[in-house]
Amino acid sequence: MDLTTLTQTSGEWLRGTGPESDIVVSSRIRLARNLAQFPFLGRADDGVRTEIEELLQGPISSLPMKGELTYFDVNSLEALDRQFLVERQLISREHAETHGSRGVGIGPEENVSLMINEEDHLRLQVLRSGFALDDCWEEMNLIDDALEQQVAFAFSEQLGYLTACPTNVGTGIRVSVMLHLPALALTKEIQKVFQAMQKMRLAVRGLYGEGSQAMGDFYQFSNQVTLGPSEQELIDKLKEVIDGIIKYERRVRDELVVKNRQRLHDQVARAHGILSSAQTITSEETMHLLSSVRMGINLGLVDGLEIPTINELFIQTQPAHLQKLRNEKLESAERNVARAAYIRKRMGDSSHENN
Amino acid sequence: MDLTTLTQTSGEWLRGTGPESDIVVSSRIRLARNLAQFPFLGRADDGVRTEIEELLQGPISSLPMKGELTYFDVNSLEALDRQFLVERQLISREHAETHGSRGVGIGPEENVSLMINEEDHLRLQVLRSGFALDDCWEEMNLIDDALEQQVAFAFSEQLGYLTACPTNVGTGIRVSVMLHLPALALTKEIQKVFQAMQKMRLAVRGLYGEGSQAMGDFYQFSNQVTLGPSEQELIDKLKEVIDGIIKYERRVRDELVVKNRQRLHDQVARAHGILSSAQTITSEETMHLLSSVRMGINLGLVDGLEIPTINELFIQTQPAHLQKLRNEKLESAERNVARAAYIRKRMGDSSHENN
Repeated sequence: MDLTTLTQTSGEWLRGTGPESDIVVSSRIRLARNLAQFPFLGRADDGVRTEIEELLQGPISSLPMKGELTYFDVNSLEALDRQFLVERQLISREHAETHGSRGVGIGPEENVSLMINEEDHLRLQVLRSGFALDDCWEEMNLIDDALEQQVAFAFSEQLGYLTACPTNVGTGIRVSVMLHLPALALTKEIQKVFQAMQKMRLAVRGLYGEGSQAMGDFYQFSNQVTLGPSEQELIDKLKEVIDGIIKYERRVRDELVVKNRQRLHDQVARAHGILSSAQTITSEETMHLLSSVRMGINLGLVDGLEIPTINELFIQTQPAHLQKLRNEKLESAERNVARAAYIRKRMGDSSHENN
Repeated sequence: MDLTTLTQTSGEWLRGTGPESDIVVSSRIRLARNLAQFPFLGRADDGVRTEIEELLQGPISSLPMKGELTYFDVNSLEALDRQFLVERQLISREHAETHGSRGVGIGPEENVSLMINEEDHLRLQVLRSGFALDDCWEEMNLIDDALEQQVAFAFSEQLGYLTACPTNVGTGIRVSVMLHLPALALTKEIQKVFQAMQKMRLAVRGLYGEGSQAMGDFYQFSNQVTLGPSEQELIDKLKEVIDGIIKYERRVRDELVVKNRQRLHDQVARAHGILSSAQTITSEETMHLLSSVRMGINLGLVDGLEIPTINELFIQTQPAHLQKLRNEKLESAERNVARAAYIRKRMGDSSHENN
């Protein structure tokens, strides 16, 4: 598997077939780990970074998985390829933008991504389509246990796992769920959710993690606390909260359909109409319109389009993906034209009517 | 022919087949005439109005025409039917809204409309598709001459024809041309046209004459002067001015296509996409979007749609037309839904692709 292969496939988590997939796009668990015998990266010179990468490549390539792990030397990738991996949620923006020896091991179907030399020596990530935190955790446990048999992680009896940033100390876990909440966003009820999250010390972010905007009405919910509760407690707490938000979004959707079906149908149909006909379109407008169409499909207001197509379009219409698909570098204005053409093609492939 | 028949047909002038029809929607000439033996309508009581109507019905029904003249007793028509005739440009808003005995004789293919008891005793109107003022004038002359053999019009050797409003005294003529000027409107060049018209004492109005907004980038150009120059001189002057505006609009369209084809194509395609998919749409938005599509067709940016379809949609999507088509009274919100459904149907009928 190389990057070109990745452009022609899409991760399992994008299929949109998992539990509660009308609202939950994906579930993700990541662990932060550091090797005991090396300093944190903030104090590591280039040579040490290279040593860390070399040391970790062996253990991660022999992990128990259903298929082969592919390793990308991120440091030698071009900016476009790094951005491509970010858009695909296989590496973080920080990992793409930092310098020095680093890489990522990607598991079969893109369900596992193991970043070496991100903020910590090792960041383990397991991803699933839909609401499937238990599955994520089960696989993560296997991976973590297998690694601990081969390397010694920095660990304190008192604090737990030691990490570069104190906010990750303890379990080093971040449990997160990506939700599509167009109805809560449309009715501004999402503000109440934000307030509740703050009180429960849960974080809400946009599609690309820290600091990113909630484009397309996608919100990533995750724990902020890593020290104190066990991993299972953190997972269970987030599951409970997400359950409530799912019910909330579903109730507001149903109310909208009952009270304002015409307006909702109009919004969804126009979004579909514009996506099917625009000749140039920005990434932001695309997100916004795809969000409407996605909700419309789930509410039975759109015929002939499937959720997986929309999920893929969210990813494939992003700058680096577009350029990889076309196999050429494109300026912003050219991308807008290429994006519109690609969307028209995909909408045309899977939809034979606009009503 | 009754009103129901009218709803199922459309006037010749809507076909959009006349000269310069990419820009000139229609040409119109109207004459204001009053019977010598009756006072102007401002001084006429109900009895006199009725006498005038009865007296004029005979002469107008025996005019030399290619087909039958249909007479509508406007005073006994319901408000919806009167509005329908206004939307069809067969009577004026004033004629629809005034009170007392009045009517309209409508010629074959809706090319001729003869209003009795509008502002004057008689208003003769000849309409043609495209830029065809000479044809209008030719037919008008035949009608006017034939009438003068049967009735005596109020006429002064010094002033010419006498009219209820002094602005019409003399020739009693209004020569007007309806232009579609989306490129001049888009680039704001239309402001320069307005200034030039003012200097030349020509009037610019919207789709429905005096006081109406220039919705859908339609502008009606007409003479303001009726006293002094002959009818032919007034016609020739307007023809010359319109010729210049047509060239101006065409030049700006060509420039837009060369300099900004992508943006223009995008605007046109989105307008087409929204019209093909919206579930509710106001009259104003419809006008605006149809205007884009109309320009797009003329510039070769739209496939599978014809100008006559668009011209008809401009008329058929208006409030009274929609209600006549559906044969039921509809509130504003219901009309928006019916309008959207009708447009989707018509767009679907004549277009099999959205690209």
